[in-house]
Amino acid sequence: MHVYHDHLEVRTDGKRLYEITDQIESKIDKSSIQSGTVTVFVQHTSCSIVIMENADPTARRDLEEFFDRLVPEDADYFTHDAEGSDDMPSHIRMVLTRTSETIPIVNGRMQLGTWQGIFLFEHRRSPHHRKVLITMMGE
Amino acid sequence: MHVYHDHLEVRTDGKRLYEITDQIESKIDKSSIQSGTVTVFVQHTSCSIVIMENADPTARRDLEEFFDRLVPEDADYFTHDAEGSDDMPSHIRMVLTRTSETIPIVNGRMQLGTWQGIFLFEHRRSPHHRKVLITMMGE
Amino acid sequence: MHVYHDHLEVRTDGKRLYEITDQIESKIDKSSIQSGTVTVFVQHTSCSIVIMENADPTARRDLEEFFDRLVPEDADYFTHDAEGSDDMPSHIRMVLTRTSETIPIVNGRMQLGTWQGIFLFEHRRSPHHRKVLITMMGE
Repeated sequence: MHVYHDHLEVRTDGKRLYEITDQIESKIDKSSIQSGTVTVFVQHTSCSIVIMENADPTARRDLEEFFDRLVPEDADYFTHDAEGSDDMPSHIRMVLTRTSETIPIVNGRMQLGTWQGIFLFEHRRSPHHRKVLITMMGE
Repeated sequence: MHVYHDHLEVRTDGKRLYEITDQIESKIDKSSIQSGTVTVFVQHTSCSIVIMENADPTARRDLEEFFDRLVPEDADYFTHDAEGSDDMPSHIRMVLTRTSETIPIVNGRMQLGTWQGIFLFEHRRSPHHRKVLITMMGE
Repeated sequence: MHVYHDHLEVRTDGKRLYEITDQIESKIDKSSIQSGTVTVFVQHTSCSIVIMENADPTARRDLEEFFDRLVPEDADYFTHDAEGSDDMPSHIRMVLTRTSETIPIVNGRMQLGTWQGIFLFEHRRSPHHRKVLITMMGE
């Protein structure tokens, strides 16, 4: 059993989903882990890591629209707005989704289902550099 | 330290919670892992894995009703509807909940609290076969 | 590779976020794990474990207010209310957030981002004792 740590830098330019499945596959290939798990963890509180349908871009746009309506930027009771109107909604959207995903690895491959992709879900409008940690454990 | 992979097939017949705690316990018994973790991962984007109150069925029905109201099938802005009106809501409900749970194992037993059960939360109305991966790591 | 189990008891006195980052750091220090992961798991269905912005208390208060509005205690369709009006909302808030978080450990330190803290999110109004399991795996 071994542990390998790696990371990705993801540049974002607005509120939406950014697929990172292939980059994570590459890190697993490099690690030589054949059987175990990979944990994908983002070091920020204003974006998320989620598994989502990866075939049809309309599904991602509808998801983004849903979150814009569920957590509107102009809620009159928000007091945490030092960084603008998308500041507080970004933290709420993160808590409603996930900061990490853990996926099984078998025969050196992530065991995602046919339609599953791994995405960074950016909740801020302005450009950001996001750091994603990738921890692979197994044999 | 070792890794064991196993899986369950869950047949669903509509939108609701299906308890799978006992089946996961059986897989852990078979694995001989005494101390570590189990990760329960579902390979689909239109159902979820969640830990939920397992004693009172009314709690589960209220939860299902809440999600039906939070993510209504008839939202007029959905464009991803190739598979029917429960298609897009199923992906949103999955993102709002979880695709996997990780639970500690001590003395060969999952360390769930008294009222915690593990459930597959089905978000589609028509019957489905769902594949759940179970990865046990430890010693 | 080794597994270490430890736990925390958290006393809560109402619906809000309680930071537990430092207590988890102490457990990792004691474990001698230098490289791996820590899984923080709460054994209850009426509170959550979440990673949240840990610098500005106004962000936490806005988050609490958002959840009070998203899952109101007086929804007329709730039937599970044996323990009071905050009973059913507590389960829904738990399902909408998380029961556990898994965080990488490198050089003996949790790899949280600058603004990330780990919190127990209490969803019940009356005082509770909450048990949090901490599982460290690695080398």
